[in-house]
Amino acid sequence: MEMETRSEKYAADISTIREAQARIESFIHRTPVLSSEFLNSIAGRTLLFKCECFQKGGAFKFRGACNAIFSLDDHQAAKGVVTHSSGNHAAALSLAAKLRGIPAYIVIPKNAPKCKVENVMRYGGQVIWSEATMESREDTANQVLQETGAVLVHPYNDRRIISGQGTVALELLEQNQKIDTIIVPISGGGLISGVALAAKSMNPAIRVLAAEPRGANDAAQSKAAGRIITLPETNTVADGLRAFLGDLTWPIVRDFVDDIITVDDKQIIEAMRLCYEILKVAVEPSGAIGLAAVLSDGFRKNPAWKDCNNIGIILSGGNVDLGVLWDSFSKN
Amino acid sequence: MEMETRSEKYAADISTIREAQARIESFIHRTPVLSSEFLNSIAGRTLLFKCECFQKGGAFKFRGACNAIFSLDDHQAAKGVVTHSSGNHAAALSLAAKLRGIPAYIVIPKNAPKCKVENVMRYGGQVIWSEATMESREDTANQVLQETGAVLVHPYNDRRIISGQGTVALELLEQNQKIDTIIVPISGGGLISGVALAAKSMNPAIRVLAAEPRGANDAAQSKAAGRIITLPETNTVADGLRAFLGDLTWPIVRDFVDDIITVDDKQIIEAMRLCYEILKVAVEPSGAIGLAAVLSDGFRKNPAWKDCNNIGIILSGGNVDLGVLWDSFSKN
Repeated sequence: MEMETRSEKYAADISTIREAQARIESFIHRTPVLSSEFLNSIAGRTLLFKCECFQKGGAFKFRGACNAIFSLDDHQAAKGVVTHSSGNHAAALSLAAKLRGIPAYIVIPKNAPKCKVENVMRYGGQVIWSEATMESREDTANQVLQETGAVLVHPYNDRRIISGQGTVALELLEQNQKIDTIIVPISGGGLISGVALAAKSMNPAIRVLAAEPRGANDAAQSKAAGRIITLPETNTVADGLRAFLGDLTWPIVRDFVDDIITVDDKQIIEAMRLCYEILKVAVEPSGAIGLAAVLSDGFRKNPAWKDCNNIGIILSGGNVDLGVLWDSFSKN
Repeated sequence: MEMETRSEKYAADISTIREAQARIESFIHRTPVLSSEFLNSIAGRTLLFKCECFQKGGAFKFRGACNAIFSLDDHQAAKGVVTHSSGNHAAALSLAAKLRGIPAYIVIPKNAPKCKVENVMRYGGQVIWSEATMESREDTANQVLQETGAVLVHPYNDRRIISGQGTVALELLEQNQKIDTIIVPISGGGLISGVALAAKSMNPAIRVLAAEPRGANDAAQSKAAGRIITLPETNTVADGLRAFLGDLTWPIVRDFVDDIITVDDKQIIEAMRLCYEILKVAVEPSGAIGLAAVLSDGFRKNPAWKDCNNIGIILSGGNVDLGVLWDSFSKN
């Protein structure tokens, strides 16, 4: 009964997430969970890293994209899909479309990181350039929509996407039954919405915490204000975490995310370095933010989280230009 | 019966490898096997990457070290262990010794990469510096042996080490039953000896191929000459692959390794870049050489290997200074 109430109130629920899992599991990688005793000793807790950087396309985004693409009926699908995402969602949608044999039109701002553009091309997406502003991106996408009749697949404010991303939590909690806390990067809220709905449904005692860059802390401000706050500008090395919450993700974040931990870029880069040097996993800045959060004073010194002993951390993606990476390390 | 003959002729066999597995499995990580459709498409085969860079200590070396340490009787163990390895074996031995609560004396040449020295210290090894020459390293180690009564654990020319490293192949062939070929970095021959003995015993049709840097191609020369060849000097970016075969590893390499594929440093660095950018795995140059080998003309154009369709590649380690790594990428 509770679930029925939820599915009216929220964009997804445990049953849409389980449906997504059944729909996509033959296409996705079941990503491994890694751990390091050295990182455990630094954190003073057991950390379990869910390596979505090893997902196809290099990020968790393939889960949602796959669920969206394979949810389309044949008539819709034939016309293809469009998105104006800047990166990982675009690559993921391209790859999922390729698997179904339909076109993916990807509107990309001219300032997007090179490796993310290469990923889109590698996976067969048709790149359509726009200016860097959100207005130009949306206008260009609308133009493509009108010309092709394709279906818009929003990177996060979409029930199919939220349900697909939630499969990360289903897998993680199957892989490790001791997890009492999950820390998830937050941007537009697609991943954390799916994770929170799945995890809280499987075990209401699990804490779901968001990690957010200080220079793009719209979600923390939104939680504090009780309504969606957007920012006039964002400034963070974590280029994947600059989006704002949408009307479908906000109610889930508001009601199911226990707290938002804010970290600065220096902490993100230090966490990224630990991922490379200790875990041996190549993450992008957005992907390392969960580790930055558990190592931050904001988490460690908060008595509310002192009983978080087995923490699942979602390493959300690994698409980074090595040159940009090195610049970050050198400057910090 | 065949196995009895083998154990007289060679330093290890499938039963010593299975004993090693039982001895060490509660201490080691069962490392995941990753794959990438993009890399498959480049290679024209299915590649299955066994990620020993995620092993404790950052390399496969922990398997052999653990087997050696936990094979000691209590009296021997109490006096500790010594080695004069330059890197991953040293870290691995330190960590295994720490788990047993015994001292590890690690003789390290002054020119060893910083991250490898840090690894030894992180895992509680007692660093004893020597000059960079093998003579100085051996002399210093002998001095420590005499002073402490500790047990020397050679990095590869040791039956306990060979047996421990062979557990990589047991795991890999359990994780993927289709594998018809395994490509293994070769240096002193400990890893490939264990892998070849295990794999050929489980399935005699499996091809076991070594990957070796052109600037340290003593194993290729040895196979061609039919006896152990050592080199006056070595020159390769793959600092973990500069050792020469020993009297215990040579007969196994001679009799069970099907071929040795030689690659140059540029190919190693390109393979390392693919590991970072596509697989999202942080490998050291030595770790990436198996991928370099399958992408080389020496492998691709050799008709003997045209039926190698499902290739296990051992990503042997991930301990690299990020600064050194970046220099390599920039210069190539």
